[in-house]
Amino acid sequence: MSNQDITPPQVITCRAVVCWGPDQPLKLEEITVDPPKASEVRVKLLYASVCHSDLLGSRGKPVVFPRILGHEGVGEVESLGSEVTGFKIGDVVVPVYIGECGSCSNCKKDKTNLCLVNPLSLNGLLRDGTSRMSAQGKPLFHFLSCSTWSEYTVIDASYLVRVDSAVEPRHASFLSCGFSTGYGAAWKEAHIEPGSTVAVLGLGAVGLGVIKGSSILGATTIIGVDLNEAKRGKGEAFGMTHFLNPNQSEKSITELIQEMTGGMGVDYCFECTGVTGLVSQAVDSTKPGGGMAVIIGAGDENELHINFMSLIMGRTIKGTIFGGIKPRSDLPVLFDKCERKEIQLDQLASHEISLEELPNVEEILKEADCVKISIKF
Amino acid sequence: MSNQDITPPQVITCRAVVCWGPDQPLKLEEITVDPPKASEVRVKLLYASVCHSDLLGSRGKPVVFPRILGHEGVGEVESLGSEVTGFKIGDVVVPVYIGECGSCSNCKKDKTNLCLVNPLSLNGLLRDGTSRMSAQGKPLFHFLSCSTWSEYTVIDASYLVRVDSAVEPRHASFLSCGFSTGYGAAWKEAHIEPGSTVAVLGLGAVGLGVIKGSSILGATTIIGVDLNEAKRGKGEAFGMTHFLNPNQSEKSITELIQEMTGGMGVDYCFECTGVTGLVSQAVDSTKPGGGMAVIIGAGDENELHINFMSLIMGRTIKGTIFGGIKPRSDLPVLFDKCERKEIQLDQLASHEISLEELPNVEEILKEADCVKISIKF
Repeated sequence: MSNQDITPPQVITCRAVVCWGPDQPLKLEEITVDPPKASEVRVKLLYASVCHSDLLGSRGKPVVFPRILGHEGVGEVESLGSEVTGFKIGDVVVPVYIGECGSCSNCKKDKTNLCLVNPLSLNGLLRDGTSRMSAQGKPLFHFLSCSTWSEYTVIDASYLVRVDSAVEPRHASFLSCGFSTGYGAAWKEAHIEPGSTVAVLGLGAVGLGVIKGSSILGATTIIGVDLNEAKRGKGEAFGMTHFLNPNQSEKSITELIQEMTGGMGVDYCFECTGVTGLVSQAVDSTKPGGGMAVIIGAGDENELHINFMSLIMGRTIKGTIFGGIKPRSDLPVLFDKCERKEIQLDQLASHEISLEELPNVEEILKEADCVKISIKF
Repeated sequence: MSNQDITPPQVITCRAVVCWGPDQPLKLEEITVDPPKASEVRVKLLYASVCHSDLLGSRGKPVVFPRILGHEGVGEVESLGSEVTGFKIGDVVVPVYIGECGSCSNCKKDKTNLCLVNPLSLNGLLRDGTSRMSAQGKPLFHFLSCSTWSEYTVIDASYLVRVDSAVEPRHASFLSCGFSTGYGAAWKEAHIEPGSTVAVLGLGAVGLGVIKGSSILGATTIIGVDLNEAKRGKGEAFGMTHFLNPNQSEKSITELIQEMTGGMGVDYCFECTGVTGLVSQAVDSTKPGGGMAVIIGAGDENELHINFMSLIMGRTIKGTIFGGIKPRSDLPVLFDKCERKEIQLDQLASHEISLEELPNVEEILKEADCVKISIKF
């Protein structure tokens, strides 16, 4: 039976959390979700999760409203367009915000994951320049090709990866962005060697992913840095060897990291907080001669101030989107590691909520023990 | 005959150009040069040359005065200390400002040339904390372990490389820093692949070295950028394929480079001017996803302003000292290329002067056709 033999999919009415404008409260709404067009897939969400970038999105980066946020998630293929190959109804899939066509010049290279055919999309529209979702008669913009804070969403098939491993759905959701971004930054961007020294600024899902990746790749010193003392245990669960709470010292993060590494600094420092003022400290915390700062966290500020002498002494600053992960080549590796329990993500899952509770997300994020919020559908 | 059988070397009186204080005029002086201590070599200069860093040095970076500037040069071993191995009287040598012990953890790694045993020395003193040179009864500080603007100089043997190839002495002087720094940045830092696109900001000896290195490594588009129209011919002589004079357009360097590369930007952009404001343009001129800006030029400013979104889109910024060149491993490769005429440096040699003329160096540097000033002893 080909896709064409199936009764054409109809408009679905369902619930979603809508962001009506910058800094406006999130609202649970009844929305309509159109059938997928030729290259698209409609996904019934099983789980979504919350990433810091969603909150940036709620404040207006990029400025397209009203929209449905959420870019982490996992769901089942509910229906698909006539041109979609590689997926069938019922497949478990995760959305990603950059694709991997496999044949453009970037996909053929090892050094970048930024597919030229399926790039980061910031205009909130699908490939044909339209939206599949609306509420109160108004079209809703998509968010980063994903929009997972909805019972149903439509995604271009290029931005989906099938989950063939027996990984728990809520864990698959974590792997669709945050944790994989951190893990990838250690694996695909820094290419950490055994015996390396590593520092990680910010122990959210991204930072914990960096720690796990660094640990699996054989780093022997892994310093986690966070203002929240509750993150000590989380970091240790993923392989952190030392914890640093900058609030407990008058010294700068750089000075503290240098002290912990015999004055030399670390081989790799990962900036995962999105606080741009920490970028220069991340750079200065690395070794002169070969030290690398990997910049992952996005924030509200757009100008970085870097010390020239620090950079010129043989240091490197590398920016990364999605930690260098090529979705179709690399995510299955992480799914497999989860299935085999080499990566255990239970420690990430601090909160599980319903879609009704999601508009209150900013309050939940303030709780000291909060790492990841799962939305169960 | 061992070194010990030779009559002990005596104090030499000779001429040198002395910088008595920040921004004070350079002066030709009679100086005394002490015999080399155990690990040191006294060198009779054949040629020296002028590098932009010497001028920074004359303005007080680092602040140690009075001193003898000059870090490019070539000379003959006149005498040597009792513990020196690997050199004999009459050997032709070039001074370098970072050493290569060959056995520290950095020397054993490919990813940095910053030897931990023989580091960049900024205090103007030799290993034992003293100087070998004085004028008018006052000790003179050394400059970057070198001080080549003198008929004789004393250098720790760790900061010397023997020239075994038949390379012209004035060319060997150019290879002791500037040109090799640029060439090395393309070769050892960027690891340019065949078919790469390259932009070079500033076509002095460093920039021309980048162009030559990029050309030999197979870059197919090499865009030279300079405000001085006279540099067009120089760039072409070393393999530049396109020339850009930013004064001839209202557009930014970044916009112009993007236009020349189909909107994509270049794979590698090398900042060789030392104008820190150009660093962000160098970064923005590279491709998102794998583009790399290599920062070589040192200037008066110490704070860099970088666009965060530009960096996070998969770009890398790499700072380098001496272009990643490991002096004893890599300089002989360049000497050989010069001997075999694979690298032809005649186009660099724009001015040849005597030591008496050297105090007027800033005026000569302003001449439009000036690339490198050689001082012939």
